[in-house]
Amino acid sequence: MNLEFAKMHGLGNDFVVFDGVRQAVELTRERIRAIADRRFGIGCDQVLVLEPAERSGVDFAYRIYNADGGEVEQCGNGARCVALFAREAGLTDKDRLRLETLGGEIMPRILPDGRVTVDMGVPHLEGADIPLSEPGEWVRAPLEVAGERRRITAVSVGNPHCVLEVEDATAAPLSTLGPVLEHHPLFPNRANVEFVEVRSPDRIRVRVWERGAGVTLACGTGACASVVAARLWDRVGPRAEVELDGGNLTIEWAGPEEPILMTGPAVITFRGVLGQWPASRPATAGP
Amino acid sequence: MNLEFAKMHGLGNDFVVFDGVRQAVELTRERIRAIADRRFGIGCDQVLVLEPAERSGVDFAYRIYNADGGEVEQCGNGARCVALFAREAGLTDKDRLRLETLGGEIMPRILPDGRVTVDMGVPHLEGADIPLSEPGEWVRAPLEVAGERRRITAVSVGNPHCVLEVEDATAAPLSTLGPVLEHHPLFPNRANVEFVEVRSPDRIRVRVWERGAGVTLACGTGACASVVAARLWDRVGPRAEVELDGGNLTIEWAGPEEPILMTGPAVITFRGVLGQWPASRPATAGP
Repeated sequence: MNLEFAKMHGLGNDFVVFDGVRQAVELTRERIRAIADRRFGIGCDQVLVLEPAERSGVDFAYRIYNADGGEVEQCGNGARCVALFAREAGLTDKDRLRLETLGGEIMPRILPDGRVTVDMGVPHLEGADIPLSEPGEWVRAPLEVAGERRRITAVSVGNPHCVLEVEDATAAPLSTLGPVLEHHPLFPNRANVEFVEVRSPDRIRVRVWERGAGVTLACGTGACASVVAARLWDRVGPRAEVELDGGNLTIEWAGPEEPILMTGPAVITFRGVLGQWPASRPATAGP
Repeated sequence: MNLEFAKMHGLGNDFVVFDGVRQAVELTRERIRAIADRRFGIGCDQVLVLEPAERSGVDFAYRIYNADGGEVEQCGNGARCVALFAREAGLTDKDRLRLETLGGEIMPRILPDGRVTVDMGVPHLEGADIPLSEPGEWVRAPLEVAGERRRITAVSVGNPHCVLEVEDATAAPLSTLGPVLEHHPLFPNRANVEFVEVRSPDRIRVRVWERGAGVTLACGTGACASVVAARLWDRVGPRAEVELDGGNLTIEWAGPEEPILMTGPAVITFRGVLGQWPASRPATAGP
Protein backbone atom coordinates (compact mmCIF):
# COMPACT_ATOMS: atom_id res chain seq x y z
CA MET A 1 0.00 0.00 0.00
CA ASN A 2 1.17 3.50 -0.79
CA LEU A 3 1.86 5.82 2.13
CA GLU A 4 2.20 9.57 1.58
CA PHE A 5 4.52 11.71 3.67
CA ALA A 6 6.27 15.07 3.78
CA LYS A 7 9.92 15.59 4.65
CA MET A 8 10.32 18.73 6.79
CA HIS A 9 12.87 20.47 8.96
CA GLY A 10 13.07 23.18 11.59
CA LEU A 11 16.57 24.64 11.74
CA GLY A 12 18.02 21.39 10.38
CA ASN A 13 16.25 19.16 12.92
CA ASP A 14 14.51 16.95 10.36
CA PHE A 15 11.26 15.01 10.29
CA VAL A 16 9.22 12.56 8.23
CA VAL A 17 5.61 13.71 8.74
CA PHE A 18 2.61 11.44 8.06
CA ASP A 19 -1.03 12.46 7.63
CA GLY A 20 -2.70 9.86 9.85
CA VAL A 21 -6.09 11.55 9.41
CA ARG A 22 -6.73 10.70 5.74
CA GLN A 23 -4.66 7.52 5.57
CA ALA A 24 -4.02 4.60 7.94
CA VAL A 25 -0.48 4.91 9.34
CA GLU A 26 0.61 1.76 11.14
CA LEU A 27 4.09 2.10 12.59
CA THR A 28 6.04 -0.53 14.46
CA ARG A 29 9.36 0.21 16.15
CA GLU A 30 11.10 -1.70 13.35
CA ARG A 31 9.28 0.26 10.61
CA ILE A 32 10.16 3.61 12.24
CA ARG A 33 13.83 2.63 12.35
CA ALA A 34 13.65 1.64 8.66
CA ILE A 35 11.99 4.97 7.73
CA ALA A 36 14.54 7.01 9.73
CA ASP A 37 17.53 5.28 8.09
CA ARG A 38 19.24 7.85 5.87
CA ARG A 39 20.47 5.37 3.20
CA PHE A 40 17.96 2.50 3.17
CA GLY A 41 14.93 4.62 4.18
CA ILE A 42 13.80 8.27 4.01
CA GLY A 43 16.07 9.56 6.78
CA CYS A 44 15.16 11.83 9.73
CA ASP A 45 15.73 12.62 13.40
CA GLN A 46 12.07 12.02 14.30
CA VAL A 47 8.90 10.61 12.71
CA LEU A 48 5.76 12.73 13.36
CA VAL A 49 2.19 11.47 12.90
CA LEU A 50 -0.85 13.77 12.85
CA GLU A 51 -3.98 11.88 13.98
CA PRO A 52 -7.65 12.66 14.61
CA ALA A 53 -8.15 14.28 18.05
CA GLU A 54 -9.75 12.20 20.79
CA ARG A 55 -11.20 15.14 22.74
CA SER A 56 -13.61 17.81 21.44
CA GLY A 57 -12.19 21.31 20.99
CA VAL A 58 -8.81 19.83 20.02
CA ASP A 59 -7.91 19.93 16.30
CA PHE A 60 -5.53 16.98 16.07
CA ALA A 61 -3.49 14.58 18.14
CA TYR A 62 0.19 14.33 17.26
CA ARG A 63 2.72 11.61 18.08
CA ILE A 64 6.50 11.82 18.04
CA TYR A 65 8.89 8.89 17.51
CA ASN A 66 12.68 9.06 17.70
CA ALA A 67 14.81 7.45 15.00
CA ASP A 68 15.36 4.46 17.33
CA GLY A 69 11.61 3.77 17.33
CA GLY A 70 10.85 5.00 20.87
CA GLU A 71 7.93 7.42 21.46
CA VAL A 72 8.72 10.78 23.13
CA GLU A 73 6.55 13.46 24.75
CA GLN A 74 7.61 16.74 23.18
CA CYS A 75 9.69 18.33 20.43
CA GLY A 76 9.69 22.11 19.84
CA ASN A 77 11.03 22.01 16.27
CA GLY A 78 8.57 19.20 15.47
CA ALA A 79 5.57 21.14 16.81
CA ARG A 80 6.25 23.98 14.35
CA CYS A 81 6.57 21.53 11.46
CA VAL A 82 3.42 19.53 12.24
CA ALA A 83 1.35 22.73 12.50
CA LEU A 84 2.50 23.98 9.09
CA PHE A 85 2.00 20.48 7.66
CA ALA A 86 -1.65 20.37 8.80
CA ARG A 87 -2.38 23.60 6.96
CA GLU A 88 -0.29 23.00 3.82
CA ALA A 89 -1.68 19.48 3.40
CA GLY A 90 -5.18 20.98 3.47
CA LEU A 91 -6.24 19.33 6.75
CA THR A 92 -7.26 22.69 8.22
CA ASP A 93 -7.40 26.35 7.21
CA LYS A 94 -6.91 27.67 10.76
CA ASP A 95 -3.76 29.54 11.74
CA ARG A 96 -4.11 28.70 15.44
CA LEU A 97 -4.21 24.99 16.23
CA ARG A 98 -4.83 23.04 19.40
CA LEU A 99 -2.86 19.78 19.37
CA GLU A 100 -2.76 17.04 21.99
CA THR A 101 0.54 15.24 22.62
CA LEU A 102 1.78 12.72 25.18
CA GLY A 103 3.36 15.72 26.96
CA GLY A 104 0.11 17.73 27.10
CA GLU A 105 -1.62 20.24 24.84
CA ILE A 106 0.25 22.69 22.62
CA MET A 107 -1.23 25.62 20.71
CA PRO A 108 0.97 26.52 17.71
CA ARG A 109 0.15 29.61 15.64
CA ILE A 110 1.16 29.95 11.98
CA LEU A 111 2.31 33.50 11.15
CA PRO A 112 1.69 35.19 7.79
CA ASP A 113 5.39 34.76 6.90
CA GLY A 114 5.15 30.96 7.40
CA ARG A 115 7.04 30.90 10.69
CA VAL A 116 5.26 29.22 13.62
CA THR A 117 4.94 30.34 17.25
CA VAL A 118 4.66 27.70 19.97
CA ASP A 119 3.88 28.27 23.65
CA MET A 120 6.65 26.37 25.45
CA GLY A 121 5.11 26.74 28.95
CA VAL A 122 6.38 28.41 32.14
CA PRO A 123 10.06 27.79 32.97
CA HIS A 124 11.06 26.42 36.36
CA LEU A 125 13.98 27.75 38.39
CA GLU A 126 13.61 25.95 41.74
CA GLY A 127 16.13 23.15 42.27
CA ALA A 128 13.50 20.50 43.06
CA ASP A 129 11.66 21.21 39.79
CA ILE A 130 14.64 21.08 37.39
CA PRO A 131 15.77 18.77 39.10
CA LEU A 132 19.00 19.71 40.92
CA SER A 133 20.66 17.77 43.69
CA GLU A 134 20.49 20.92 45.85
CA PRO A 135 17.48 23.15 46.67
CA GLY A 136 17.02 26.83 45.74
CA GLU A 137 17.54 28.83 42.56
CA TRP A 138 20.89 28.81 40.75
CA VAL A 139 21.28 32.13 38.91
CA ARG A 140 24.89 33.03 38.10
CA ALA A 141 25.74 30.73 41.01
CA PRO A 142 29.36 29.59 41.36
CA LEU A 143 30.06 25.93 40.56
CA GLU A 144 33.33 24.01 40.65
CA VAL A 145 33.78 22.41 37.21
CA ALA A 146 36.91 20.52 36.15
CA GLY A 147 39.00 22.43 38.70
CA GLU A 148 37.67 25.86 37.69
CA ARG A 149 34.98 28.08 39.20
CA ARG A 150 32.18 28.81 36.68
CA ARG A 151 28.97 30.80 37.09
CA ILE A 152 25.99 28.78 35.96
CA THR A 153 22.22 29.34 35.73
CA ALA A 154 19.89 26.33 36.03
CA VAL A 155 16.54 26.38 34.18
CA SER A 156 13.92 23.76 33.32
CA VAL A 157 11.84 24.16 30.14
CA GLY A 158 10.35 20.69 30.51
CA ASN A 159 13.95 19.43 30.48
CA PRO A 160 17.00 20.55 32.53
CA HIS A 161 19.42 23.22 31.24
CA CYS A 162 22.71 24.66 32.50
CA VAL A 163 23.37 28.12 31.00
CA LEU A 164 26.72 29.99 31.01
CA GLU A 165 27.57 33.44 29.68
CA VAL A 166 30.65 33.60 27.44
CA GLU A 167 32.41 36.43 25.61
CA ASP A 168 32.62 34.53 22.32
CA ALA A 169 30.18 31.71 21.61
CA THR A 170 32.17 30.56 18.56
CA ALA A 171 35.18 29.86 20.78
CA ALA A 172 33.10 28.31 23.61
CA PRO A 173 34.45 25.00 24.97
CA LEU A 174 31.36 22.97 23.89
CA SER A 175 32.94 19.58 23.49
CA THR A 176 35.16 19.79 26.58
CA LEU A 177 33.00 21.60 29.17
CA GLY A 178 29.66 20.40 27.66
CA PRO A 179 29.92 16.73 28.65
CA VAL A 180 31.40 17.59 32.08
CA LEU A 181 28.43 19.85 32.92
CA GLU A 182 25.93 17.40 31.34
CA HIS A 183 27.09 14.76 33.84
CA HIS A 184 27.80 17.09 36.81
CA PRO A 185 26.39 15.73 40.11
CA LEU A 186 24.31 18.94 40.46
CA PHE A 187 22.08 17.55 37.64
CA PRO A 188 20.79 14.09 38.66
CA ASN A 189 18.90 13.75 35.32
CA ARG A 190 21.86 15.26 33.44
CA ALA A 191 21.57 18.62 31.61
CA ASN A 192 21.61 20.37 28.25
CA VAL A 193 24.38 22.98 28.29
CA GLU A 194 24.14 26.43 26.63
CA PHE A 195 26.97 28.90 26.01
CA VAL A 196 25.42 32.37 25.60
CA GLU A 197 27.09 35.40 24.05
CA VAL A 198 24.95 38.54 24.58
CA ARG A 199 25.30 40.74 21.47
CA SER A 200 22.65 43.37 22.34
CA PRO A 201 19.59 43.61 24.61
CA ASP A 202 17.52 41.87 21.91
CA ARG A 203 20.04 39.46 20.35
CA ILE A 204 22.09 36.56 21.69
CA ARG A 205 24.29 33.94 20.04
CA VAL A 206 23.90 30.47 21.58
CA ARG A 207 25.78 27.23 21.08
CA VAL A 208 24.31 24.06 22.56
CA TRP A 209 25.66 20.80 23.96
CA GLU A 210 22.52 18.63 23.87
CA ARG A 211 21.98 15.97 26.53
CA GLY A 212 22.58 12.56 24.98
CA ALA A 213 23.31 14.06 21.55
CA GLY A 214 26.35 16.34 21.88
CA VAL A 215 26.84 19.39 19.67
CA THR A 216 23.64 19.92 17.61
CA LEU A 217 22.59 22.53 15.02
CA ALA A 218 19.62 23.86 16.98
CA CYS A 219 17.82 23.07 20.23
CA GLY A 220 14.49 24.87 20.74
CA THR A 221 14.36 24.37 24.51
CA GLY A 222 18.03 25.49 24.71
CA ALA A 223 17.15 28.78 23.02
CA CYS A 224 14.29 29.26 25.51
CA ALA A 225 16.45 28.47 28.55
CA SER A 226 19.14 30.85 27.26
CA VAL A 227 16.75 33.82 26.98
CA VAL A 228 15.25 33.08 30.42
CA ALA A 229 18.77 33.07 31.89
CA ALA A 230 19.89 36.22 30.03
CA ARG A 231 16.72 37.99 31.20
CA LEU A 232 17.41 36.92 34.81
CA TRP A 233 20.92 38.39 34.39
CA ASP A 234 19.23 41.66 33.17
CA ARG A 235 21.15 41.36 29.90
CA VAL A 236 18.18 41.17 27.48
CA GLY A 237 14.62 42.53 27.30
CA PRO A 238 11.35 40.53 27.05
CA ARG A 239 12.01 39.53 23.43
CA ALA A 240 15.27 38.33 21.91
CA GLU A 241 16.50 36.88 18.62
CA VAL A 242 18.56 33.75 19.27
CA GLU A 243 21.26 32.84 16.74
CA LEU A 244 21.85 29.07 16.71
CA ASP A 245 24.19 27.11 14.41
CA GLY A 246 21.18 25.94 12.32
CA GLY A 247 19.41 29.34 12.13
CA ASN A 248 17.46 31.82 14.24
CA LEU A 249 14.59 31.59 16.74
CA THR A 250 12.69 34.49 18.33
CA ILE A 251 12.03 33.93 22.04
CA GLU A 252 9.62 36.01 24.13
CA TRP A 253 9.43 35.81 27.92
CA ALA A 254 7.74 38.48 30.03
CA GLY A 255 9.27 37.19 33.28
CA PRO A 256 8.70 34.71 36.15
CA GLU A 257 5.39 32.76 36.08
CA GLU A 258 4.91 33.75 32.41
CA PRO A 259 5.03 31.25 29.52
CA ILE A 260 7.82 31.29 26.93
CA LEU A 261 6.81 31.90 23.30
CA MET A 262 9.13 30.44 20.66
CA THR A 263 8.86 31.54 17.00
CA GLY A 264 10.82 29.89 14.23
CA PRO A 265 10.82 28.43 10.72
CA ALA A 266 9.21 25.22 9.51
CA VAL A 267 10.18 24.05 6.02
CA ILE A 268 8.64 21.41 3.74
CA THR A 269 11.66 19.99 1.89
CA PHE A 270 9.70 17.62 -0.35
CA ARG A 271 6.64 15.37 -0.50
CA GLY A 272 6.87 11.67 -1.13
CA VAL A 273 5.18 8.31 -1.45
CA LEU A 274 6.42 5.04 0.01
CA GLY A 275 5.33 2.01 -1.98
CA GLN A 276 5.17 0.54 -5.46
CA TRP A 277 5.12 2.58 -8.62
CA PRO A 278 1.69 2.28 -10.28
CA ALA A 279 1.89 -0.54 -12.86
CA SER A 280 0.53 1.61 -15.69
CA ARG A 281 1.76 5.12 -15.19
CA PRO A 282 0.39 7.85 -17.48
CA ALA A 283 3.19 9.91 -18.97
CA THR A 284 1.82 13.25 -17.73
CA ALA A 285 0.68 12.51 -14.15
CA GLY A 286 2.70 12.92 -10.96
CA PRO A 287 4.18 9.79 -9.37
CA MET B 1 8.06 24.37 -10.49
CA ASN B 2 7.58 20.84 -9.25
CA LEU B 3 10.34 18.34 -9.92
CA GLU B 4 9.68 14.62 -9.58
CA PHE B 5 12.35 12.19 -8.43
CA ALA B 6 12.90 8.70 -7.07
CA LYS B 7 15.15 7.85 -4.15
CA MET B 8 16.98 4.57 -4.84
CA HIS B 9 19.86 2.51 -3.50
CA GLY B 10 22.11 -0.32 -4.54
CA LEU B 11 23.57 -2.10 -1.49
CA GLY B 12 23.20 1.12 0.55
CA ASN B 13 24.95 3.35 -2.02
CA ASP B 14 22.08 5.81 -2.42
CA PHE B 15 20.84 8.02 -5.26
CA VAL B 16 18.34 10.72 -6.13
CA VAL B 17 17.22 9.85 -9.66
CA PHE B 18 15.56 12.37 -11.99
CA ASP B 19 13.59 11.65 -15.16
CA GLY B 20 15.12 14.26 -17.47
CA VAL B 21 13.21 12.87 -20.46
CA ARG B 22 9.68 13.95 -19.49
CA GLN B 23 10.64 16.97 -17.37
CA ALA B 24 13.28 19.70 -17.62
CA VAL B 25 15.99 19.05 -15.01
CA GLU B 26 18.32 22.01 -14.60
CA LEU B 27 21.02 21.31 -12.06
CA THR B 28 23.74 23.68 -10.92
CA ARG B 29 26.58 22.60 -8.66
CA GLU B 30 24.89 24.48 -5.80
CA ARG B 31 21.52 22.83 -6.41
CA ILE B 32 23.09 19.34 -6.48
CA ARG B 33 24.76 20.02 -3.13
CA ALA B 34 21.42 21.21 -1.71
CA ILE B 35 19.63 18.08 -3.00
CA ALA B 36 22.33 15.76 -1.62
CA ASP B 37 22.21 17.32 1.87
CA ARG B 38 20.71 14.73 4.21
CA ARG B 39 18.99 17.24 6.56
CA PHE B 40 18.16 20.29 4.45
CA GLY B 41 17.64 18.38 1.16
CA ILE B 42 16.74 14.86 0.03
CA GLY B 43 20.07 13.25 0.87
CA CYS B 44 22.19 10.90 -1.29
CA ASP B 45 25.69 9.87 -2.35
CA GLN B 46 25.05 10.72 -6.04
CA VAL B 47 22.43 12.45 -8.18
CA LEU B 48 21.56 10.56 -11.40
CA VAL B 49 19.77 12.11 -14.38
CA LEU B 50 18.30 10.07 -17.25
CA GLU B 51 18.19 12.13 -20.46
CA PRO B 52 17.21 11.61 -24.10
CA ALA B 53 19.98 9.86 -26.06
CA GLU B 54 21.98 11.88 -28.57
CA ARG B 55 22.91 8.96 -30.82
CA SER B 56 20.53 6.58 -32.60
CA GLY B 57 20.39 3.03 -31.28
CA VAL B 58 21.04 4.27 -27.75
CA ASP B 59 18.04 4.31 -25.40
CA PHE B 60 19.05 7.06 -22.99
CA ALA B 61 21.95 9.19 -21.86
CA TYR B 62 22.68 9.19 -18.15
CA ARG B 63 24.69 11.65 -16.05
CA ILE B 64 26.20 11.16 -12.60
CA TYR B 65 26.93 13.92 -10.09
CA ASN B 66 28.64 13.42 -6.75
CA ALA B 67 27.18 15.02 -3.60
CA ASP B 68 29.76 17.82 -3.92
CA GLY B 69 28.27 18.80 -7.31
CA GLY B 70 31.07 17.44 -9.52
CA GLU B 71 30.23 15.24 -12.51
CA VAL B 72 31.79 11.74 -12.69
CA GLU B 73 32.16 9.14 -15.45
CA GLN B 74 30.90 5.88 -14.02
CA CYS B 75 29.12 4.30 -11.04
CA GLY B 76 28.31 0.55 -11.00
CA ASN B 77 25.63 0.73 -8.31
CA GLY B 78 24.11 3.78 -10.04
CA ALA B 79 23.94 2.03 -13.43
CA ARG B 80 21.76 -0.73 -11.92
CA CYS B 81 19.46 1.83 -10.32
CA VAL B 82 19.05 4.04 -13.39
CA ALA B 83 18.16 1.00 -15.55
CA LEU B 84 15.45 -0.16 -13.14
CA PHE B 85 14.23 3.45 -12.83
CA ALA B 86 13.77 3.77 -16.62
CA ARG B 87 11.54 0.74 -16.69
CA GLU B 88 9.59 1.30 -13.44
CA ALA B 89 8.93 4.94 -14.36
CA GLY B 90 7.43 3.74 -17.63
CA LEU B 91 10.11 5.27 -19.88
CA THR B 92 10.75 1.93 -21.58
CA ASP B 93 9.47 -1.62 -21.47
CA LYS B 94 12.76 -3.16 -22.55
CA ASP B 95 14.79 -5.34 -20.20
CA ARG B 96 18.06 -4.69 -22.05
CA LEU B 97 19.07 -1.03 -22.28
CA ARG B 98 21.84 0.79 -24.06
CA LEU B 99 22.90 3.88 -22.09
CA GLU B 100 25.55 6.46 -22.95
CA THR B 101 27.62 7.96 -20.13
CA LEU B 102 30.67 10.22 -19.94
CA GLY B 103 32.66 7.01 -19.37
CA GLY B 104 31.31 5.25 -22.47
CA GLU B 105 28.33 3.04 -23.26
CA ILE B 106 26.88 0.57 -20.76
CA MET B 107 24.30 -2.12 -21.45
CA PRO B 108 22.42 -3.04 -18.27
CA ARG B 109 19.95 -5.91 -18.30
CA ILE B 110 17.01 -6.14 -15.87
CA LEU B 111 16.44 -9.72 -14.66
CA PRO B 112 12.98 -11.16 -13.93
CA ASP B 113 13.73 -10.98 -10.16
CA GLY B 114 14.38 -7.20 -10.37
CA ARG B 115 18.16 -7.47 -10.06
CA VAL B 116 20.23 -5.84 -12.78
CA THR B 117 23.29 -7.13 -14.66
CA VAL B 118 25.89 -4.62 -15.89
CA ASP B 119 28.86 -5.35 -18.17
CA MET B 120 31.79 -3.81 -16.33
CA GLY B 121 34.31 -4.26 -19.16
CA VAL B 122 37.57 -6.21 -19.42
CA PRO B 123 39.90 -5.98 -16.38
CA HIS B 124 43.52 -4.91 -16.80
CA LEU B 125 46.44 -6.59 -15.06
CA GLU B 126 49.47 -4.98 -16.71
CA GLY B 127 51.23 -2.42 -14.49
CA ALA B 128 51.14 0.35 -17.08
CA ASP B 129 47.33 -0.01 -17.44
CA ILE B 130 46.39 0.03 -13.74
CA PRO B 131 48.62 2.16 -13.31
CA LEU B 132 51.48 0.81 -11.17
CA SER B 133 54.88 2.44 -10.72
CA GLU B 134 56.47 -0.83 -11.92
CA PRO B 135 55.79 -2.85 -15.10
CA GLY B 136 54.42 -6.40 -15.30
CA GLU B 137 51.57 -8.23 -13.60
CA TRP B 138 51.29 -8.34 -9.82
CA VAL B 139 49.48 -11.56 -8.86
CA ARG B 140 50.15 -12.69 -5.27
CA ALA B 141 53.33 -10.66 -5.60
CA PRO B 142 55.26 -9.87 -2.41
CA LEU B 143 55.15 -6.23 -1.25
CA GLU B 144 56.77 -4.60 1.77
CA VAL B 145 53.95 -2.81 3.68
CA ALA B 146 54.44 -1.11 7.05
CA GLY B 147 57.43 -3.33 7.80
CA GLU B 148 55.68 -6.58 6.87
CA ARG B 149 55.75 -8.68 3.70
CA ARG B 150 52.24 -9.03 2.14
CA ARG B 151 51.11 -10.78 -1.04
CA ILE B 152 49.05 -8.45 -3.19
CA THR B 153 47.25 -8.66 -6.56
CA ALA B 154 46.84 -5.50 -8.64
CA VAL B 155 43.77 -5.18 -10.92
CA SER B 156 42.18 -2.31 -12.81
CA VAL B 157 38.40 -2.33 -13.40
CA GLY B 158 38.44 1.23 -14.75
CA ASN B 159 39.99 2.18 -11.41
CA PRO B 160 42.99 0.67 -9.55
CA HIS B 161 42.58 -2.08 -6.96
CA CYS B 162 44.93 -3.85 -4.54
CA VAL B 163 43.54 -7.26 -3.49
CA LEU B 164 44.76 -9.38 -0.54
CA GLU B 165 43.58 -12.80 0.63
CA VAL B 166 42.80 -13.05 4.36
CA GLU B 167 41.61 -15.90 6.57
CA ASP B 168 38.88 -13.82 8.24
CA ALA B 169 37.48 -10.76 6.44
CA THR B 170 35.62 -9.61 9.56
CA ALA B 171 38.93 -9.28 11.42
CA ALA B 172 40.76 -7.73 8.42
CA PRO B 173 42.87 -4.64 9.25
CA LEU B 174 40.81 -2.31 6.97
CA SER B 175 41.39 0.97 8.75
CA THR B 176 45.09 0.38 9.46
CA LEU B 177 46.38 -1.41 6.35
CA GLY B 178 43.77 0.13 4.00
CA PRO B 179 45.11 3.70 3.99
CA VAL B 180 48.75 2.52 3.87
CA LEU B 181 48.10 0.44 0.71
CA GLU B 182 45.87 3.18 -0.80
CA HIS B 183 48.85 5.55 -0.64
CA HIS B 184 51.62 2.98 -1.33
CA PRO B 185 54.17 4.22 -3.92
CA LEU B 186 53.33 1.20 -6.11
CA PHE B 187 49.99 2.93 -6.91
CA PRO B 188 50.70 6.42 -8.36
CA ASN B 189 46.92 7.11 -8.66
CA ARG B 190 46.30 5.49 -5.27
CA ALA B 191 44.21 2.31 -4.91
CA ASN B 192 41.03 0.77 -3.58
CA VAL B 193 41.95 -2.06 -1.21
CA GLU B 194 40.04 -5.35 -0.89
CA PHE B 195 40.43 -8.01 1.81
CA VAL B 196 39.09 -11.29 0.42
CA GLU B 197 38.09 -14.36 2.43
CA VAL B 198 37.42 -17.34 0.12
CA ARG B 199 34.55 -19.36 1.60
CA SER B 200 34.02 -21.81 -1.25
CA PRO B 201 34.80 -21.99 -5.02
CA ASP B 202 31.66 -19.91 -5.69
CA ARG B 203 31.48 -17.61 -2.65
CA ILE B 204 33.82 -14.99 -1.21
CA ARG B 205 33.45 -12.45 1.61
CA VAL B 206 35.00 -9.05 0.79
CA ARG B 207 35.61 -5.93 2.87
CA VAL B 208 36.65 -2.75 1.08
CA TRP B 209 38.77 0.30 1.86
CA GLU B 210 37.57 2.73 -0.84
CA ARG B 211 40.01 5.23 -2.32
CA GLY B 212 39.12 8.66 -0.96
CA ALA B 213 36.17 7.33 1.04
CA GLY B 214 37.53 4.79 3.56
CA VAL B 215 35.43 1.86 4.78
CA THR B 216 32.20 1.72 2.71
CA LEU B 217 29.19 -0.62 2.68
CA ALA B 218 29.64 -1.80 -0.89
CA CYS B 219 31.92 -1.09 -3.83
CA GLY B 220 30.87 -2.64 -7.15
CA THR B 221 34.28 -2.39 -8.80
CA GLY B 222 35.86 -3.79 -5.59
CA ALA B 223 33.67 -6.89 -5.87
CA CYS B 224 34.72 -7.30 -9.53
CA ALA B 225 38.44 -6.89 -8.77
CA SER B 226 38.16 -9.40 -5.91
CA VAL B 227 36.65 -12.12 -8.11
CA VAL B 228 39.23 -11.47 -10.85
CA ALA B 229 42.01 -11.84 -8.26
CA ALA B 230 40.49 -14.95 -6.62
CA ARG B 231 40.10 -16.53 -10.07
CA LEU B 232 43.76 -15.75 -10.90
CA TRP B 233 44.68 -17.47 -7.61
CA ASP B 234 42.59 -20.53 -8.79
CA ARG B 235 40.45 -20.18 -5.69
CA VAL B 236 37.05 -19.61 -7.37
CA GLY B 237 35.29 -20.64 -10.61
CA PRO B 238 33.92 -18.37 -13.37
CA ARG B 239 30.98 -17.21 -11.22
CA ALA B 240 31.04 -16.20 -7.55
CA GLU B 241 28.70 -14.66 -5.02
CA VAL B 242 30.41 -11.73 -3.25
CA GLU B 243 29.30 -10.88 0.28
CA LEU B 244 29.85 -7.19 1.01
CA ASP B 245 28.90 -5.28 4.18
CA GLY B 246 25.87 -3.76 2.37
CA GLY B 247 24.67 -6.97 0.68
CA ASN B 248 25.57 -9.43 -2.09
CA LEU B 249 26.67 -9.10 -5.72
CA THR B 250 27.08 -11.92 -8.25
CA ILE B 251 30.23 -11.55 -10.37
CA GLU B 252 30.96 -13.55 -13.52
CA TRP B 253 34.33 -13.58 -15.24
CA ALA B 254 35.33 -16.22 -17.80
CA GLY B 255 39.03 -15.25 -17.69
CA PRO B 256 41.63 -12.91 -19.28
CA GLU B 257 40.36 -10.71 -22.14
CA GLU B 258 36.75 -11.44 -21.12
CA PRO B 259 34.41 -8.77 -19.69
CA ILE B 260 33.18 -8.88 -16.09
CA LEU B 261 29.41 -9.18 -15.53
CA MET B 262 28.10 -7.74 -12.27
CA THR B 263 24.57 -8.61 -11.05
CA GLY B 264 23.00 -6.97 -8.03
CA PRO B 265 19.97 -5.33 -6.50
CA ALA B 266 18.46 -1.93 -7.29
CA VAL B 267 15.79 -0.68 -4.89
CA ILE B 268 13.30 2.19 -5.22
CA THR B 269 12.99 3.46 -1.64
CA PHE B 270 10.35 6.10 -2.36
CA ARG B 271 9.14 8.58 -4.99
CA GLY B 272 8.95 12.30 -4.30
CA VAL B 273 8.24 15.79 -5.54
CA LEU B 274 10.35 18.87 -4.86
CA GLY B 275 8.30 22.09 -4.86
CA GLN B 276 5.20 23.73 -3.48
CA TRP B 277 2.15 21.85 -2.29
CA PRO B 278 -0.70 22.47 -4.75
CA ALA B 279 -2.73 25.42 -3.39
CA SER B 280 -6.04 23.56 -3.59
CA ARG B 281 -5.35 19.96 -2.86
CA PRO B 282 -8.21 17.46 -3.30
CA ALA B 283 -8.59 15.29 -0.22
CA THR B 284 -8.31 12.00 -2.09
CA ALA B 285 -5.45 12.61 -4.55
CA GLY B 286 -1.75 11.83 -4.09
CA PRO B 287 0.62 14.73 -3.40
